[in-house]
Amino acid sequence: MIDLNADLGEGFGRWQLTDDAALLSVVTSANVACGFHAGDPVTMRRVCELAAERGVRIGAQVSYRDLAGFGRRAMDVPAAELAAEVAYQIGALEVFARAAGSRVSYVKPHGALYNRTVWDADQAGAVVAGVLLAGGALPVLGLPGSRLLEAAESAELPCVPEAFADRAYTARGTLVPRAEPGAVVHDGDRVVSRSLTMAREGAVVAITGERVAVSARSLCLHGDTPGAAELALRVRRALLAADVSLEPFA
Amino acid sequence: MIDLNADLGEGFGRWQLTDDAALLSVVTSANVACGFHAGDPVTMRRVCELAAERGVRIGAQVSYRDLAGFGRRAMDVPAAELAAEVAYQIGALEVFARAAGSRVSYVKPHGALYNRTVWDADQAGAVVAGVLLAGGALPVLGLPGSRLLEAAESAELPCVPEAFADRAYTARGTLVPRAEPGAVVHDGDRVVSRSLTMAREGAVVAITGERVAVSARSLCLHGDTPGAAELALRVRRALLAADVSLEPFA
Amino acid sequence: MIDLNADLGEGFGRWQLTDDAALLSVVTSANVACGFHAGDPVTMRRVCELAAERGVRIGAQVSYRDLAGFGRRAMDVPAAELAAEVAYQIGALEVFARAAGSRVSYVKPHGALYNRTVWDADQAGAVVAGVLLAGGALPVLGLPGSRLLEAAESAELPCVPEAFADRAYTARGTLVPRAEPGAVVHDGDRVVSRSLTMAREGAVVAITGERVAVSARSLCLHGDTPGAAELALRVRRALLAADVSLEPFA
Amino acid sequence: MIDLNADLGEGFGRWQLTDDAALLSVVTSANVACGFHAGDPVTMRRVCELAAERGVRIGAQVSYRDLAGFGRRAMDVPAAELAAEVAYQIGALEVFARAAGSRVSYVKPHGALYNRTVWDADQAGAVVAGVLLAGGALPVLGLPGSRLLEAAESAELPCVPEAFADRAYTARGTLVPRAEPGAVVHDGDRVVSRSLTMAREGAVVAITGERVAVSARSLCLHGDTPGAAELALRVRRALLAADVSLEPFA
Repeated sequence: MIDLNADLGEGFGRWQLTDDAALLSVVTSANVACGFHAGDPVTMRRVCELAAERGVRIGAQVSYRDLAGFGRRAMDVPAAELAAEVAYQIGALEVFARAAGSRVSYVKPHGALYNRTVWDADQAGAVVAGVLLAGGALPVLGLPGSRLLEAAESAELPCVPEAFADRAYTARGTLVPRAEPGAVVHDGDRVVSRSLTMAREGAVVAITGERVAVSARSLCLHGDTPGAAELALRVRRALLAADVSLEPFA
Repeated sequence: MIDLNADLGEGFGRWQLTDDAALLSVVTSANVACGFHAGDPVTMRRVCELAAERGVRIGAQVSYRDLAGFGRRAMDVPAAELAAEVAYQIGALEVFARAAGSRVSYVKPHGALYNRTVWDADQAGAVVAGVLLAGGALPVLGLPGSRLLEAAESAELPCVPEAFADRAYTARGTLVPRAEPGAVVHDGDRVVSRSLTMAREGAVVAITGERVAVSARSLCLHGDTPGAAELALRVRRALLAADVSLEPFA
Repeated sequence: MIDLNADLGEGFGRWQLTDDAALLSVVTSANVACGFHAGDPVTMRRVCELAAERGVRIGAQVSYRDLAGFGRRAMDVPAAELAAEVAYQIGALEVFARAAGSRVSYVKPHGALYNRTVWDADQAGAVVAGVLLAGGALPVLGLPGSRLLEAAESAELPCVPEAFADRAYTARGTLVPRAEPGAVVHDGDRVVSRSLTMAREGAVVAITGERVAVSARSLCLHGDTPGAAELALRVRRALLAADVSLEPFA
Repeated sequence: MIDLNADLGEGFGRWQLTDDAALLSVVTSANVACGFHAGDPVTMRRVCELAAERGVRIGAQVSYRDLAGFGRRAMDVPAAELAAEVAYQIGALEVFARAAGSRVSYVKPHGALYNRTVWDADQAGAVVAGVLLAGGALPVLGLPGSRLLEAAESAELPCVPEAFADRAYTARGTLVPRAEPGAVVHDGDRVVSRSLTMAREGAVVAITGERVAVSARSLCLHGDTPGAAELALRVRRALLAADVSLEPFA
């Protein structure tokens, strides 16, 4: 049993990026952009409606306030500001989720905020404070071993560890940094086979050849590059063909 | 019985504008800026907490997306975009109202959107569509006779007509346009006495001398000019001294 | 002899829209977005460098400040604000044009500002005031008969009338409003043949069948739709094959 | 001989912060906000006009793109983006400086970018790359010993070291971090006397009692707090009374 999540609704006004309709036929959980790195209100509404129709769970993909940098530039945001900004985004998305007959049912940080809260306990705490502020004790989706999931656990929020079939792992089970060679797996067949191993065996072959355990309740699929939606669909089909049950986590 | 409303939380980050703490000791309803013309998340949170503590009702002061123009520049926003933008703002504020133990309990457009929806039925309808999208059948605060209140009424939303003690009225009971001489009443004593007449008698003396009826469940006080918070306090005291009951409308 | 112009650099950060490299092989004048409706500094720099390399003239495509609406929502911007905003955009682009060894050599309003200044003399005057403020007596590119070109002429700025090969014209030589049926010519062959007639004969066949004169020193090609860059290239080739000289206007 | 500089034009639209008119009677160099942390085009224009009238030199106060955080939140902006953003801001300001009959004649980073480029060689290099991109070999104003001034010197740009009369210094001549007690000198008389010692003797008494050399061609005065403009005026008068010549640096 595994969940599939992907980033959706990452356009802004005239600009579109993710193939939301296609991805919503693949994933069980949709990380919807909330307007700070991407995601205008019309797009948020449409994605929520489509997700609700297809029974896909809606999550708030919260970000630094950085449209120009697509949320990929880490920012030293004081904790109180970051918490309030996170809550603001959750609240804004909630209105469209409810209008579509659904609810925001988890939170996942985007881009630089995701990477920063892997190691920065202050910002991780601030994100969790924002989730608490928003109410409802929402689950937090993140990297196993991250400060983010630690902070969420301390706050007694449900923690959902995720894995990346298209990212290389070290022998210790951490991600190979993007800057290093081989960090990203581009070959579609390998992505599919790694997804299967992750979902069925809770394991992955590290970049150095060792087999290591990866604990993941959800697999993250990417949707913002050409061919990504298709590859995501292949992963989905391969998992179903292998009798893996695709189920949202909450 | 009358309600007193004012715009609050109209700073943005480093910039402050309204004396929120002072105004929250005066009004019974706080029109809180939601981030589109003013109002950062930290300010929204703080204003909601203070409002909840003092038993002041929280309303969403929704606006065009125009920080540079403080929401004072009318925009030809297509109806679907405007509705979604209105809902987004309500949702963002709701998170802070709830965290403070309160709720967003009404909606009032700001600046150019307020003025535009007096006569523009399309945009008035879009604002009301946004309120409906946000759920909860929230009351709409606006000018008597405006397209906005008409649209709200058609949608079976509670309508709250308001009056302005510091604005001159025509003999037909409409506001004298700001560009005309005498449109704004600057004399504090006159503002106080007009407030009393409006609240107790439902009337005002028009700029041309006639006594005209003004139907108002709420008086709008201004808070963004020097001395405004003090004048608002004088109005409050005068009303209380005259045995007018100050009560939120919903 | 005719000039070919198109909108370029209309991405923003992560989002790309126009195929700048392809269009810069087609046009003689590049309307470069300056950051208000689209156009981040990195994109502006790159487009200017490429334009300078290929000998394409650089123009400032100035807009309302409206990233969320891509500058397509008319705004009631007071004249002094609009003039200063126009000058700001021209100055920002000038730095990249100069760094590439070129100069900003004309100004063309974008989207809603283009449409508004066809009839709104105040805003047309404000745009021209902004051009004057920026210095250098830059030519203004616009619709023949527009308030914009009238204001530019009054200010003794060079006026460059343009025509649209993919837009239907009325018998009076004005554009058929986009909302009306047949307003946009989608057939590529017709766009090409109309371009030829416009460039060689200064004429077009109106939607009602009459032949009408169109006075155009430049043809506007569109670049933000699928297939647009290819169609623009076809127009260029057809004009060259017909011995029309493609030359920038200034 | 010393220069006095202060941050000006740090309002945005409806919000005002600095008392620009008062400060322009005090300083010899105006660090004008360029729109990324503060500074709308109308304000930029007005400040440039006033500065030119009074013979005050105009500098570009460049910042991270962060209106919500007033440029006080450090951002991991890639070098190429940062350089282009710096150039964009300089170009935008240049248009108003020229229109007022002056020129942008130096560059000073604002807030978090100022602090970051004290130690971060990459970002310091990017700021200098942006200055070079903007052309004109503009002087860079900064902290003595900072990576910023080192990068400027390597690029053969004129370097202008500045000192802060209201900040405590360590025995090594560096600033006491703001978070430490005593970091900011609040007493007006002490600020005045320190300004005199800095300007006449190139020295300051460190927080630990030692006399240390401070090399400063300019003194930075603050203008964004209540009473700041008055204190700046007192510093100016004390310097003039002590026969210190107030002269811009370039």
